Amino acid sequence: MFRRSGANSNNVLRNNPAMEWTVTPIGIVSASRAHPEDDNWGAEESSIVLADGLPDEALDGIDTFSHVEILFVLHDAAAAQIVTGARHPRNNVAWPKVGIFAQRGKNRPNRIGSTICRVVRRDARRLDVAELDAIDGTPVLDIKPVMQEFLPREPVSQPQWSHELMAAYWQRRHPTNR
Amino acid sequence: MFRRSGANSNNVLRNNPAMEWTVTPIGIVSASRAHPEDDNWGAEESSIVLADGLPDEALDGIDTFSHVEILFVLHDAAAAQIVTGARHPRNNVAWPKVGIFAQRGKNRPNRIGSTICRVVRRDARRLDVAELDAIDGTPVLDIKPVMQEFLPREPVSQPQWSHELMAAYWQRRHPTNR
Repeated sequence: MFRRSGANSNNVLRNNPAMEWTVTPIGIVSASRAHPEDDNWGAEESSIVLADGLPDEALDGIDTFSHVEILFVLHDAAAAQIVTGARHPRNNVAWPKVGIFAQRGKNRPNRIGSTICRVVRRDARRLDVAELDAIDGTPVLDIKPVMQEFLPREPVSQPQWSHELMAAYWQRRHPTNR
Repeated sequence: MFRRSGANSNNVLRNNPAMEWTVTPIGIVSASRAHPEDDNWGAEESSIVLADGLPDEALDGIDTFSHVEILFVLHDAAAAQIVTGARHPRNNVAWPKVGIFAQRGKNRPNRIGSTICRVVRRDARRLDVAELDAIDGTPVLDIKPVMQEFLPREPVSQPQWSHELMAAYWQRRHPTNR
């Protein structure tokens, strides 16, 4: 499901930054949201259904973990919108201009999203999760179990703007807005 | 830096599980380990140097975060070794056979690794991190800042085998083993 399109050694890789890798979705997201939204992902439930080439048993044991990390393609981000330098997060000038790798916005090189979700249930080749911030039809590249040992082992610190940006992210959407 | 190789709508995607996406490294890891090892990644320091096509400012502000999440290609995993079903983690029969998406081993579809690391310092187009479990020459696909709000918002639970597997992972390597 993965192949290296370029040459082979580490040195060749270092000398060839244009090298490409090919990835294939391992599943697709079914979700209630058809279009991206900045906030209010709290309590949203969605499903990931495995791609045809994979056996059901690829998910065996996944529900012995409380959380999974989903890697997915931010496929609604337009190629022309990709930022490679710095910008104000969400284009909000009240927040400092920072590099694309110092923010989590979708218009980023390679357009890969990564979100830790709660496991709700697994049924054969379907995994239901809570609070995956991906829209309907999103291609999934990987599912990884969350292990406490892979979470930060020291206190986490972050700038004030990022707390402000996240303030409403996990709030539930008011029912009348649906 | 990213293009969709297939067709365009969500429905087409659902009907075309063989669809491919192309990704390009945004940087390369410089590390002391040339070959993968299962354990003892504690206190290891490595550097990520941005690919030529990216400006230094892509990293602006990254050092206002204590931790970053690094997405990288597990490029030493051989295509022939990729597991799509279930196996015993590390092929240890003392642990249950679980699906590839219920473990974090490298021989997985799409071979993408994801690790949260401590930010050590940023110098122009170089980011030094602690405890990135990637070998020298690893292609990096993304760098994301760790925000508390994206970490699990409920207690994390996981099976006993995963604690056993991780027991020595972040232990420091004994100096005489170097």
